Amino acid sequence: MDLLEGIRTRRSVRAYTAEPVAREAILEILRAGTWAPSGLNNQPWRFAVATDPAVRARLAALTRYGKIVEAAPACIGVFLDAEASYHPVKDHQGMGACIQNMLLAAHALGLGAVWLGEILRSADAVREVFGLPPGLELMAVVALGHPAGPVRAPARRGLDEVLLREL
Amino acid sequence: MDLLEGIRTRRSVRAYTAEPVAREAILEILRAGTWAPSGLNNQPWRFAVATDPAVRARLAALTRYGKIVEAAPACIGVFLDAEASYHPVKDHQGMGACIQNMLLAAHALGLGAVWLGEILRSADAVREVFGLPPGLELMAVVALGHPAGPVRAPARRGLDEVLLREL
Repeated sequence: MDLLEGIRTRRSVRAYTAEPVAREAILEILRAGTWAPSGLNNQPWRFAVATDPAVRARLAALTRYGKIVEAAPACIGVFLDAEASYHPVKDHQGMGACIQNMLLAAHALGLGAVWLGEILRSADAVREVFGLPPGLELMAVVALGHPAGPVRAPARRGLDEVLLREL
Repeated sequence: MDLLEGIRTRRSVRAYTAEPVAREAILEILRAGTWAPSGLNNQPWRFAVATDPAVRARLAALTRYGKIVEAAPACIGVFLDAEASYHPVKDHQGMGACIQNMLLAAHALGLGAVWLGEILRSADAVREVFGLPPGLELMAVVALGHPAGPVRAPARRGLDEVLLREL
């Protein structure tokens, strides 16, 4: 897939077929995440993957978007390692870059994904479902599967709205 | 350029030829930024572009990486609009996704770019150089140009270090 076209055509995919996601595809998506830039190259991202339906059901109970988590054959917990953190704003930006790489890679592989943020209100419980220690701060859950049905393309502001100065 | 290859081969480029960056390329890079996902689709990103050497010299004085800013034919100030903000962590993540799209687009266009974060310590002064009001919070400056010379590929942690659980 062409890079610029992939950036333009990536969408949040919230409905999936029952087909499992190959483990190699999940690893490829994680590798793409690790190629994001990070301040001081601190690479603070850590991942946990849930494909087991029972584990996903426990995660689903922690968000109002539980139906997506239950339907997605794979859910990736994305965590910030407090020990690797050096600057909250820049680390959160770097985590966003990492997640964006993951979403783009999923799209390039013909998969559909959605970035779930509302589940952050249950960050500690998600960490416990994955059996991870307190130093790992939940940043997002990425739900992943083979796309089912049409996807919506939310409108974007035009450049006239966001480009404020040319000097 | 292939998307997955582009993610893998993008590098921080800190040395540029004197050749200017076409305005259309800058706009394409900004458009790529606007295709990032954002919480509630709030699209909080705003941009300001400096190509004028005198303006870049003023920006250069605000960071210890001033030589890069002076050498880059174009510098893009990336701002978070406080009025569009809804959740600091998620907004900062979204800004990171936006910046990552911009860096990938620059790479796809054969340009080189680097994400400058140290300049955030002079956020207010950067905002003033661009003549922007206080509600715009500097998130990064992206320096941009045609690559000159070799680039370094910093090492990445292997998946064995970052994939903590598979359930």
